[in-house]
Amino acid sequence: PQVLVLTGFPCNRPELVYFVNSLTKKISLMICGHIIEGADSETLRQYRRYQKGYVTRWLNKRKIKAFYSVTTATNYRQGARGLMQTAGIGKLKPNILMMGFKSTWITDEPTNMDTYLSVIHDAFDCDYGVGILRTPERLFSEDPDMQPEDLNIHEEDEKNYDAMGDEVTPALTPMRRQSTPEVEPQDIELQTIENVNHLFERSLSKVENSLIFNKKQKGTIDVWWLFDDGGLTLLVPYILQTQSLWKNCGLRVFTAGTKRGELGREQKQMAQLLSKFRIECQDMTIITDVGKLPQEKTKQEFNELMKGMILDEDNGETPEEFPWKTSEDQMLLLKEKTNRMIRLRELLQEHSKDASLIVMTLPVPRKGTCPSSLYMAWLETLTRGMPPVLLLRGNQQSVLTFYS
Amino acid sequence: PQVLVLTGFPCNRPELVYFVNSLTKKISLMICGHIIEGADSETLRQYRRYQKGYVTRWLNKRKIKAFYSVTTATNYRQGARGLMQTAGIGKLKPNILMMGFKSTWITDEPTNMDTYLSVIHDAFDCDYGVGILRTPERLFSEDPDMQPEDLNIHEEDEKNYDAMGDEVTPALTPMRRQSTPEVEPQDIELQTIENVNHLFERSLSKVENSLIFNKKQKGTIDVWWLFDDGGLTLLVPYILQTQSLWKNCGLRVFTAGTKRGELGREQKQMAQLLSKFRIECQDMTIITDVGKLPQEKTKQEFNELMKGMILDEDNGETPEEFPWKTSEDQMLLLKEKTNRMIRLRELLQEHSKDASLIVMTLPVPRKGTCPSSLYMAWLETLTRGMPPVLLLRGNQQSVLTFYS
Repeated sequence: PQVLVLTGFPCNRPELVYFVNSLTKKISLMICGHIIEGADSETLRQYRRYQKGYVTRWLNKRKIKAFYSVTTATNYRQGARGLMQTAGIGKLKPNILMMGFKSTWITDEPTNMDTYLSVIHDAFDCDYGVGILRTPERLFSEDPDMQPEDLNIHEEDEKNYDAMGDEVTPALTPMRRQSTPEVEPQDIELQTIENVNHLFERSLSKVENSLIFNKKQKGTIDVWWLFDDGGLTLLVPYILQTQSLWKNCGLRVFTAGTKRGELGREQKQMAQLLSKFRIECQDMTIITDVGKLPQEKTKQEFNELMKGMILDEDNGETPEEFPWKTSEDQMLLLKEKTNRMIRLRELLQEHSKDASLIVMTLPVPRKGTCPSSLYMAWLETLTRGMPPVLLLRGNQQSVLTFYS
Repeated sequence: PQVLVLTGFPCNRPELVYFVNSLTKKISLMICGHIIEGADSETLRQYRRYQKGYVTRWLNKRKIKAFYSVTTATNYRQGARGLMQTAGIGKLKPNILMMGFKSTWITDEPTNMDTYLSVIHDAFDCDYGVGILRTPERLFSEDPDMQPEDLNIHEEDEKNYDAMGDEVTPALTPMRRQSTPEVEPQDIELQTIENVNHLFERSLSKVENSLIFNKKQKGTIDVWWLFDDGGLTLLVPYILQTQSLWKNCGLRVFTAGTKRGELGREQKQMAQLLSKFRIECQDMTIITDVGKLPQEKTKQEFNELMKGMILDEDNGETPEEFPWKTSEDQMLLLKEKTNRMIRLRELLQEHSKDASLIVMTLPVPRKGTCPSSLYMAWLETLTRGMPPVLLLRGNQQSVLTFYS
């Protein structure tokens, strides 16, 4: 898999960068995509500034083998499309789009939900697979050592900036932003990349020591293979396992079975399949009760998420006005899918609470069938309070080959 | 020089493709950029279709070493920007943008003039050099062998199309379009690339035999070096000369001198400079009367071009309504520059009428100072009825090194 990862400034989403690097290192391609929204000449000035190699140096210092590609676009979606279509060259072209989970979807500008879902759809239209990574948030935002004061600029720093010929701006925001890997790189409005880098260097030890994905991983990688997407959901964990960071991790595969009576046979088939792909698997579980109705309590949690996201048609709200909102009809129509997500959350909590990584099939509704708010609630349900989760979906092209 | 060339479908602008290839072959990078305007799902479908390798096969068949990069964008300017910013990877990134001359600027949708000039400005903002190639048009449009009837689809072809699973559409337009290398790839609306390719193959011998730039070149390459742009205007002809297609061509350098009395000294300096760069030059001419006023007749020709492009303020036309039009004030303000272009035309006709290629500094007005119609008239004046002309401007970064 060759990966285009929407990082904005890579230093603002270090977990995502380190994670993808642990997947592509030495064997594949990684491009960090950065989209600057806007079409005026100021945007182009930013573009030129960011091009200057600071980011590449930041990456090199951390031995992250990645290219950095920055682009300007009138809106985020166009920029992401452009990157997907033109990044790389010849065979060095990415085929998987990785993003951080947009954990601010509830509080953020609601149209951004639509953008997020559109980018996912565009990715499949451009023949990309899609991966969404969510890491536990406490890492940054609740780290008591990471106080804003740490980031104030001291005198000697000012001199450094002067020497670099750059303006001095106390850049508190970007560091806080790290806690929320979101899709919009709004940070770029706030300060020059040099400042970000510099600040990042200063608090480097603190931040980077608290990262998950720059350390050797223990525990299991739990694969929830719910849908045959060409095998990407299996391939990625397999590749991770071959990399030094993850080599101590056992692979456990979970898949949904149909009938209770056929369990033994299905398990056997699955084992045969995996061994055909020469994927070593520590444990394999066929879950037969995915179809069970979820508990009232977990359902309640989900409904909590949808508060304010339901189209209030009685008070005259229209879908044209609030395209991201979900109507009661749509809720009803997608009730079964929603229940399945809630049920999956229960199962994840039951089986994979202690995994070092969960890799799961990314749900992808057909275009226009699922409003973005409901979709985000699904993803939230699958990922909140979990170990790091990678939601993954291939582009239906078979990536596994076996010799029979 | 690593070149991004805006070809649309390469088969629609073969001269441009062959020319750039003769510059980059074996030593450098060439990317054929294709922009599909629009943002709907039909555009994405086209994108997927064009990605399938037909174009790459077309290029390979002609031994053109180029990558093909297609992108969708809401408008042409955005698409060109995106390509410039994200095409290539690492050190394999283009630094020169090449385009065909937009010879339809008078008859085409006038806003396209603005687009054309904007793309040029954007290129410099993205640290690109810019080259604009104009080849004599009679090649295609006046070729008596190239009748539209040739392009009608015969029965056996229909079968072929059926076998390919593609709709049959008599594609007359794209072949006619070849005669006018313009910046907008409207052709894409008309037929699938398979058809274009197929038709192109059929009339291959006719069209390709009439091309200029797929044959060994004789005669001189005349360089008109009017402005120090970092040396690109000298470097490109020098590189051309080292390539097999152009190796029989002598280089002649023309440059503007200041005072008649100092002619000998200036000529000597120039010769020294060129020998420092180790550029072999067959002949060198210092033109001292660039500043002379042009003749009434050539002036008249220019005024003819500007007909309908002058802002009719007396009848209430405003620049907001007709941004591409030139006001009388602007005409007056830029009179000196305009006269220089007209005078250069006279000089080109005098000295370089029989060159096999003219390479000349591209005039680039500061942003906002020159309306696009006046700019297009300048370019038209410099290129119409001439041998192939390449207008070229570096991004001010020095590309020539010498040992002193």
